[in-house]
Amino acid sequence: MSPEEFRRHGRQVIDWIADYLAGIESQPVMSQVKPGEIRRALPPEPPEEGEPFESVLSDLGRILLPGITHWQHPGFFGYFPSNASGPAILGDLLSSGLGVQGMLWVTSPACTELETVVVDWLAGLLDLPARFRTDAAGGGVIQDSASSACLVALLAGLHRAGSGRVTAEGITRRYTMYVSSQTHSSLEKAARIAGLGAAGVRVVDVDPHTLAMDPGHLRALLDEDAAAGTVPAMVCATVGTTSTTAVDPVAALGAVCRERGIWLHVDAAYAGVAAVCPELRWLNDGVAEYADSYSTNPHKWLLTNFDCAVLWTGDRAPLLGALSILPDYLRNAATSTGSVVDYRNWQVPLGRRFRALKLWSVIRWYGAEGLRAHIREGVRLAQDLASWISADPGFEVREPRPLGLVCFRPVWPGLPADEADRATMRLMELLNASGSMYMTHTKVAGRVLLRMAVGGPATERRHVEQAWEQIRWEHAALAATLP
Amino acid sequence: MSPEEFRRHGRQVIDWIADYLAGIESQPVMSQVKPGEIRRALPPEPPEEGEPFESVLSDLGRILLPGITHWQHPGFFGYFPSNASGPAILGDLLSSGLGVQGMLWVTSPACTELETVVVDWLAGLLDLPARFRTDAAGGGVIQDSASSACLVALLAGLHRAGSGRVTAEGITRRYTMYVSSQTHSSLEKAARIAGLGAAGVRVVDVDPHTLAMDPGHLRALLDEDAAAGTVPAMVCATVGTTSTTAVDPVAALGAVCRERGIWLHVDAAYAGVAAVCPELRWLNDGVAEYADSYSTNPHKWLLTNFDCAVLWTGDRAPLLGALSILPDYLRNAATSTGSVVDYRNWQVPLGRRFRALKLWSVIRWYGAEGLRAHIREGVRLAQDLASWISADPGFEVREPRPLGLVCFRPVWPGLPADEADRATMRLMELLNASGSMYMTHTKVAGRVLLRMAVGGPATERRHVEQAWEQIRWEHAALAATLP
Ligand SMILES: Cc1ncc(COP(=O)(O)O)c(C=O)c1O
Ligand SMILES: Cc1ncc(COP(=O)(O)O)c(C=O)c1O
Repeated sequence: MSPEEFRRHGRQVIDWIADYLAGIESQPVMSQVKPGEIRRALPPEPPEEGEPFESVLSDLGRILLPGITHWQHPGFFGYFPSNASGPAILGDLLSSGLGVQGMLWVTSPACTELETVVVDWLAGLLDLPARFRTDAAGGGVIQDSASSACLVALLAGLHRAGSGRVTAEGITRRYTMYVSSQTHSSLEKAARIAGLGAAGVRVVDVDPHTLAMDPGHLRALLDEDAAAGTVPAMVCATVGTTSTTAVDPVAALGAVCRERGIWLHVDAAYAGVAAVCPELRWLNDGVAEYADSYSTNPHKWLLTNFDCAVLWTGDRAPLLGALSILPDYLRNAATSTGSVVDYRNWQVPLGRRFRALKLWSVIRWYGAEGLRAHIREGVRLAQDLASWISADPGFEVREPRPLGLVCFRPVWPGLPADEADRATMRLMELLNASGSMYMTHTKVAGRVLLRMAVGGPATERRHVEQAWEQIRWEHAALAATLP
Repeated sequence: MSPEEFRRHGRQVIDWIADYLAGIESQPVMSQVKPGEIRRALPPEPPEEGEPFESVLSDLGRILLPGITHWQHPGFFGYFPSNASGPAILGDLLSSGLGVQGMLWVTSPACTELETVVVDWLAGLLDLPARFRTDAAGGGVIQDSASSACLVALLAGLHRAGSGRVTAEGITRRYTMYVSSQTHSSLEKAARIAGLGAAGVRVVDVDPHTLAMDPGHLRALLDEDAAAGTVPAMVCATVGTTSTTAVDPVAALGAVCRERGIWLHVDAAYAGVAAVCPELRWLNDGVAEYADSYSTNPHKWLLTNFDCAVLWTGDRAPLLGALSILPDYLRNAATSTGSVVDYRNWQVPLGRRFRALKLWSVIRWYGAEGLRAHIREGVRLAQDLASWISADPGFEVREPRPLGLVCFRPVWPGLPADEADRATMRLMELLNASGSMYMTHTKVAGRVLLRMAVGGPATERRHVEQAWEQIRWEHAALAATLP
């Protein structure tokens, strides 16, 4: 495709996206296709001859669009938001257009140095400790996901716990990692990947009300494991759990870790970015004093399209110890001087996209003020929603709910717990099938809760009001059909 | 940013990229900035208020561009190519614009089903075995990189070797992985990540001439290790090594693996896509019969911008066994029926971009014919270059060089080996500093070789001719200054 053809088709694509975003409300939020439907509509064999770009665009609209669940729809309240925004999309487009691969400083110095600048900027915006800055002993790096960020943290923790032996000799004794029942499943996955196995994951109790990890039980488990001769590699505290946005007591957990020299990682995948607002910085209490590493996802709630997860550490040495290898074909003068950062040594993959461009573009377009306004709007709408739900005797809201996620349960008078849970699931399915909203569920203490995560940039007050009206209405209608 | 603002700025960005691509030859290929130069030119603090998008674009040109090494420049011959192309950039743009996150089938059915279709398409284009198709026991998946693809393969191999015990209990005995000295460093990295450690990596001898792995020595090492009680988790054969595009004897290695039930992964990161051309399918001899998994990177030589690496396996069960976890908040009706693919269970991260769009867009725009023409052009230019170099008594070309990479060495009459190597490096630095070409080096048998990888879509015959002229000229000039 020549530059002039690119210019022409590029405009078509930009127009397609602008029209898509402008008209997104007219689409059903959740795709209603059946398994295999999209696949069957596509040719089983690739074309022998090239096709005009217009065919791609027309099949996108005709065949694929019905199979899209619209994450940017104002009625999308499922999971956590995965914010996209104009400046992010355009920053990402610039990255694709430049087509540079930033595995080493030398393979595109600007790719590395802009990343250093924006992760330092973001550390400042979130008021993270000075230790996390690149000029100190630590530094930040953009990863594809929180899962990878937590895996890298675990590898650094293992490297330190085994004084480098894990990297050199592999896992030759039992290492353990500490999480709670509320910790994201990616941590167990990381433990399995890193060779600790599911058995190496110790599940610390949570407070039954707040669902926050219990530092006393952490200490007890550590004592038990020490007696059994296992080596603790990492404690993962969560700020804003996936299920209910519970916040683990980082300071108290950190004190235990400090006492015993254990790596403390803080997974703030969703909630961390909320610290752009000074009134929400309590979320990170204890991080400055105790965290060895910290990760949060601009690709969730900070207007930066997937993938963009930032990991910081206060000490890059064990991370680099775990992940650096230098074969001849990657040797170069800049790396040898030690005066540059080679981010390939901070991550699992070798190659890297120029992801810093999209985060840079977002921070510049919105400014600190704009980012704060975005977070505040999500929190405000969620808090209003929660107050309407709790004022309605037909529903119960789970407390606390400090951020953009509201977990709640309809009341089904007279139904036993399991039937009530089935009715709640049925209600969710009806609402999701309506096309005007999408939510997900979780379980707490064995009971189903509905989750509504507010925070998409397209979501306005009217969408939340409308969703709540619909929930009430469907609940009443469904309740009327039950015995 | 409103849809209308997006439309306006989107056109600016498309124009910026079209102009960039049209004028790329006027840029020096390799950035000449010093460490820290770009960083110092950027403000240390983020803006408090939002800025116009034009400022982003103007700083990109003014501050960042001098720090870019232009991977899409026709004079870029370093590493392996990392092809971008118009349809890939636009497919990726559509993915960013839709902003869907395809971790589960249900989170956007089209994201999953298009991926299934395009990886099946690509398997067909490369004539990979039917076992690798999604309708068989295997299937393909798009990963971010070859590094991650090989890590996932190793985890599947470990899962099978330990009958699931590694996933459940972690590494509780010694597992080993077999590579050669020519295997990419990402395999050792994978072994370290997976808990085998550097010590778990056994380096099989290579044929001193072809640099291909020696099946006899593999067998000997396996015997030794079996006697010592270690468990072989995976053998990694490479089709097209990074250093010199050596091709391991997959069939002979596969026979050894089959005999002993060891997982055979074939890393064809660079070379694999060349099998779109029937005359290059010999590269994959043995894959159909023996490979348990296979990976190749459309983001290297197949016109699809980073990141896009495809991994196939003939048996998805151990891969899913190693990587699946299902917490409550990810349960959904479609997953429960077992009738859908959830690609999150095929990879390390949870979240996923809609990467299939760019590969789909590339395959449709170029068609099978266009892809073949692209590979053939790269091979032809490289072969011509190699013939010019070998016809020149001032240079030696390394044989064989069947693809787009030419490794060669200038002759420095009278200089001992180490001084000759230094002179070769000096020559490379002079050429790279000239701004009109960029190449890298490797070492074979302790001696420096220059690597020129031809295969960028912008590279025409005249660029290769011009580079060769310049190399001869600089070599003569440098030789004249030496004692
Ligand atoms: C607390 C937490 N950690 C980790 C993750 C995993 O996110 P990713 O898809 O970026 O790996 C999530 C996703 O929702 C999360 O909520
Ligand atoms: C043979 C081989 N394997 C693996 C890789 C790693 O590639 P990636 O950056 O996709 O991880 C490379 C990169 O050049 C390679 O040549």
